[in-house]
Amino acid sequence: MVEDDVELSKVIAGEKACELLTSISELKVIGIGTGSTVKKFIETCLHFLKKHKAVASSPDTVIFAKEHGIHVLDPLTVDELDAYVDGADEVSSKLDMVKGRGGALLREKTLAYMSRNRIYIVDYTKYTGKEYLYAKPIPVEIAPMTLNYVLRAIERIGLFEPIIRTGGGKDGPVITDNGNYIIDLKPLKPLLNPREVHYELKSLHGVIETGLFPSEELVDTVIVGYPGKATIFHRK
Amino acid sequence: MVEDDVELSKVIAGEKACELLTSISELKVIGIGTGSTVKKFIETCLHFLKKHKAVASSPDTVIFAKEHGIHVLDPLTVDELDAYVDGADEVSSKLDMVKGRGGALLREKTLAYMSRNRIYIVDYTKYTGKEYLYAKPIPVEIAPMTLNYVLRAIERIGLFEPIIRTGGGKDGPVITDNGNYIIDLKPLKPLLNPREVHYELKSLHGVIETGLFPSEELVDTVIVGYPGKATIFHRK
Repeated sequence: MVEDDVELSKVIAGEKACELLTSISELKVIGIGTGSTVKKFIETCLHFLKKHKAVASSPDTVIFAKEHGIHVLDPLTVDELDAYVDGADEVSSKLDMVKGRGGALLREKTLAYMSRNRIYIVDYTKYTGKEYLYAKPIPVEIAPMTLNYVLRAIERIGLFEPIIRTGGGKDGPVITDNGNYIIDLKPLKPLLNPREVHYELKSLHGVIETGLFPSEELVDTVIVGYPGKATIFHRK
Repeated sequence: MVEDDVELSKVIAGEKACELLTSISELKVIGIGTGSTVKKFIETCLHFLKKHKAVASSPDTVIFAKEHGIHVLDPLTVDELDAYVDGADEVSSKLDMVKGRGGALLREKTLAYMSRNRIYIVDYTKYTGKEYLYAKPIPVEIAPMTLNYVLRAIERIGLFEPIIRTGGGKDGPVITDNGNYIIDLKPLKPLLNPREVHYELKSLHGVIETGLFPSEELVDTVIVGYPGKATIFHRK
């Protein structure tokens, strides 16, 4: 069954990430991302993670890590991370990524920027092999009161169809862990230069952060899991 | 007394702004900023404001306007404003401005971006006559969890001494109306190109908005009040 294959691929990617972590020298504080693949990584790598300190990218991960007996530090006590492990929603052949389906993109990016080894684990359905990003909408976290302004500004750029993310236990817009809204930007054409698009969006009034993770700035290693193997990509 | 002079100058600037508003055609919705000068404007211009609809840049102004019988709309119902009236903390001879001492810079900027006539009223102590901005710290609203990262990024830029804004009824960092922190950036040298500095800061992960209001983007008119007169500057 395809679904079983995907689940198995996540486990295999997580195992490989755990292996990779053991090879990093002077590993003290590990950042842990958010999502189903990350949870499999936490379970697979638990013995190792329990011997280190962690910082988590969301309350969801904090709670899961606590339940599993991992020491989770307050993020404001940390200036640098030795490694960061997280999932992704779409990965191109250039290792540019889209993240934020789980709504934790802002803090995920904080931890990625603070880390010296950024490792992403994905099942094979997330790796497109294409040079561009196009398959998934780009989540953008915005300040709630700027909603109307941002929607118009996005319209002017003309690259995306914006959709306000709603649902999740309440009527109306989803509220992120940081008290903000998310709009999902469906690309109208392939994004050949995600870094440029990121900075164009980030420069807009109201935009707090985007789910675009340009490989030059935020990616060191991507591990793609398959049912029987894992492929490791390092940024050139 | 100098203090009386300043108060009188604020009133005179507010009166002039009210005069200016009456000359705008098809004036329906007016944006109202935040601060002591704006409150004087509301009192001075009350008769006129009561005949229109308003949007306010902060809960402080919403409450003050409500007490004075002004119709205040929910900002999310508004796409465009016909005019926006607000104060400023520092104005250069090029009409670049620093705003945000009152902590409302994010929503002030939203309203300014949405408006077709941006009018700022200041007493004479705020107008430096200099070509650059340098007198006041630049308030920057940031996502709380990014604090450590942002402080280091500001340090790397090297243009500012950053101070976390604290106090205001609780220990620790001030929380803005949007649930964020503010850091005040003391310039180490004159800012000759505030627009460029704004976009450099805005591009940083964690930075939500800056208190730099470049004249090219956000300023149409500045009214400087003196004890016996008002000087009006229009952007060229």
